[in-house]
Amino acid sequence: MTSRLDSPLLTDLYQLTMLQGYLDHGLQETAVFEFFVRKLPENRNFLLAAGLAQVLDYLEDLHFTAEEIAWLEGTGRFNQRLLDYLESLRFTGDVHAMAEGTPCFTNEPLLRITAPLPVAQLVESRVINLLHFETLIASKAARVRLAAPEALLVDFGLRRAHAGEAGLLAARAGYLAGLDGSATVMAGQRFAVPIFGTMAHSFIEAHDDEAQAFLDFARSQPGNVVLLIDTYDTEAGAQKVVEIAPRLQAEGIRIKAVRIDSGDLAEHARRVRAILDAGGLQDTGIFASGNLDEYALRRFVRDGAPISGFGVGTRLDVSDDVPYLDCAYKLQEYAGIPRRKRSEGKATWAGRKQVYRYYDEAGQALRDSLTSADDAQDGEALIQPVMQGGRRLPIPDLVSTRERATTAVHRLPPALQALEPAQVPYPVEISDDLKRVTAEADLHQRQTGQAQAGP
Amino acid sequence: MTSRLDSPLLTDLYQLTMLQGYLDHGLQETAVFEFFVRKLPENRNFLLAAGLAQVLDYLEDLHFTAEEIAWLEGTGRFNQRLLDYLESLRFTGDVHAMAEGTPCFTNEPLLRITAPLPVAQLVESRVINLLHFETLIASKAARVRLAAPEALLVDFGLRRAHAGEAGLLAARAGYLAGLDGSATVMAGQRFAVPIFGTMAHSFIEAHDDEAQAFLDFARSQPGNVVLLIDTYDTEAGAQKVVEIAPRLQAEGIRIKAVRIDSGDLAEHARRVRAILDAGGLQDTGIFASGNLDEYALRRFVRDGAPISGFGVGTRLDVSDDVPYLDCAYKLQEYAGIPRRKRSEGKATWAGRKQVYRYYDEAGQALRDSLTSADDAQDGEALIQPVMQGGRRLPIPDLVSTRERATTAVHRLPPALQALEPAQVPYPVEISDDLKRVTAEADLHQRQTGQAQAGP
Repeated sequence: MTSRLDSPLLTDLYQLTMLQGYLDHGLQETAVFEFFVRKLPENRNFLLAAGLAQVLDYLEDLHFTAEEIAWLEGTGRFNQRLLDYLESLRFTGDVHAMAEGTPCFTNEPLLRITAPLPVAQLVESRVINLLHFETLIASKAARVRLAAPEALLVDFGLRRAHAGEAGLLAARAGYLAGLDGSATVMAGQRFAVPIFGTMAHSFIEAHDDEAQAFLDFARSQPGNVVLLIDTYDTEAGAQKVVEIAPRLQAEGIRIKAVRIDSGDLAEHARRVRAILDAGGLQDTGIFASGNLDEYALRRFVRDGAPISGFGVGTRLDVSDDVPYLDCAYKLQEYAGIPRRKRSEGKATWAGRKQVYRYYDEAGQALRDSLTSADDAQDGEALIQPVMQGGRRLPIPDLVSTRERATTAVHRLPPALQALEPAQVPYPVEISDDLKRVTAEADLHQRQTGQAQAGP
Repeated sequence: MTSRLDSPLLTDLYQLTMLQGYLDHGLQETAVFEFFVRKLPENRNFLLAAGLAQVLDYLEDLHFTAEEIAWLEGTGRFNQRLLDYLESLRFTGDVHAMAEGTPCFTNEPLLRITAPLPVAQLVESRVINLLHFETLIASKAARVRLAAPEALLVDFGLRRAHAGEAGLLAARAGYLAGLDGSATVMAGQRFAVPIFGTMAHSFIEAHDDEAQAFLDFARSQPGNVVLLIDTYDTEAGAQKVVEIAPRLQAEGIRIKAVRIDSGDLAEHARRVRAILDAGGLQDTGIFASGNLDEYALRRFVRDGAPISGFGVGTRLDVSDDVPYLDCAYKLQEYAGIPRRKRSEGKATWAGRKQVYRYYDEAGQALRDSLTSADDAQDGEALIQPVMQGGRRLPIPDLVSTRERATTAVHRLPPALQALEPAQVPYPVEISDDLKRVTAEADLHQRQTGQAQAGP
């Protein structure tokens, strides 16, 4: 795609039609929007916040090109006032957010944007698009890591991720959540995610002889010898590895691992382990891939399958059991007055919010308090400023974020670290202060004429 | 993202390590790879091929920048031979493909690439990434259209699509498959997909008075008046629409539709219809959105809910019931000799293939024949050249493709056009010729030393 994905044209048309309405009628005062997840999916005991760095990149660079303005003008949908406004539009607002890698729960804001209404509105589509996706994948990847705490875990999902940016960002989100790295080269270039990879079946098939393919690969990548042994017959492949090992050893080349990608992986791994051990290759690991997820990994670990690493692909990169989150970016305040939506089943808490997290003496997270931003409590305040007046404040780098995420996940109650739904969800208490602010917002809306159903 | 998603760095590391192996050992002869879906998901009676135009864009522009080469060199993983090769790499091969918008089935190639082995290998990750995603979404969108043949259908999914490129391409794939357009502005700019959009709840909430919000919007977008009426109370909102209608009418502004986005949509639609009709707004339509998919749409249509259009969002853009397809891009031939993978559960048919489709006298598709490319049959040959020696041949534009897709879907047997799994899947016969080629490939592999399990 030659389109700039960070162009503000990657938005919903209604943002632009609303902007025209705001400008035509002078609605340009300060608005506060928050992004949050309305309800955790049944299969997720917690979510892991991710995507903030990409949102800040987007906001920092927000602008329309002359070509984009010309295209908008050519649609005939917009008046000159809007076009002039867009031409000089930049993001000059404030952003508060939960740090990436923070476990988070229902109704807790991951991000708050404070800016003139038209700008805060315009960025909605892309802000959701980025935060939703990376949080979705980081939350899945955290489970994958919990299922196999000791194994080498590599994201293999680029090809079946939902187009290119998803593949790239899934590699980042997976690493952030505790995987060891990704096969996606661009994730290495762009985010310094460690990259992993050796060979596909086609490398074997392009050779007339499987053992020759192994030798060719090992001599070409002597520091990275992982041989794929299931193209024709897995155990026969393992036997060939044993046969060529002495020749490679004589050349100073060590066979780091073999990879299995089909069939009953645990059963093949046992047989292959026996063949390798009998052939003196006790130090050669077994790496498995093929349709894996956290449940499969846990089975292998519980059964003691002799597998030292896993490639986790499609099911991670599309979060197959939970392919989306019920999340929203909602107006919380306009012109100094708290607001909220009261639509059936979609009502929200009003005003700017803060989340305080409380721990027990051993450092285990006990509960969160969701409250209004000016209610000072003595817990850990999770929402912090990350951009002021359009300028970024420093946020942790990806490696520190990854460490932080691992620590924070292990500080959750053990039942939340299980793959099964916790009997008792993590407590998120709504403070009296937040209830008061919400009641005041409703009162204001009633007084100014917004009849709610009933009194 | 500032990364070029069409950079060849958006690939799996093993493509590059294999390339080094190929170059080091002189494996640069012509290879043939095909992309196909191994097995249709239970919830899909057919798939709709899509994404070819993006693959051709990618191949046509394939190159590494000097900066990318320098980054690769800096990783210390690659030798000078590979770096030199990549520096001058271009796609000069041939591509054959099924036209976009063609219904397709298990094992049928959607794309064939014929090029020197290293190049044909390198492009694998991105080719799958593009074809898989657009085919996934077009296949889902075709079902959405089948469920509501007469309704206005608009893609609303950008925000929860899996990052930006998915949102953009889902808009294209949805339109291709028969939707009327998308809310995604960039899809209009880049692909001339018709774009739709009016207002969100925040527009209403930013006003102190709901009726005033309606008036402001209508006066600002007089040709595009669709009013969102469920922010506070849906029926009260409809009543306000009736109240302001005469004032707008006096200004020459017509209220095209109202939108409902929460609660029991069918029930609200009935009540709102009654209110609008009683208020003289018989011509004002009702547009519904909120967590919709093909099953919900069919229910509304069957129940005669008075809804004239639907916004279909998340569940379409992530294809929530089937978030990925079991697809592959596999080596079919190298140096003139057919090849195949025989891994357990993943064995494929060997060699270059063609698909012939046969119709009955009324024009209904009867069956396909999957055969080798040089087996001339008298059915409709679905695989056609689209790129020769790296140069594109003309392919139909998106509007023609959309028409073609609609026609082709309606030529499928009626049971395949239902949402439920067809009792009898569409017949894809494997020709004797293809069986012969595959047996020869196995024979060649045995003769050259690839012992299969057993004899």
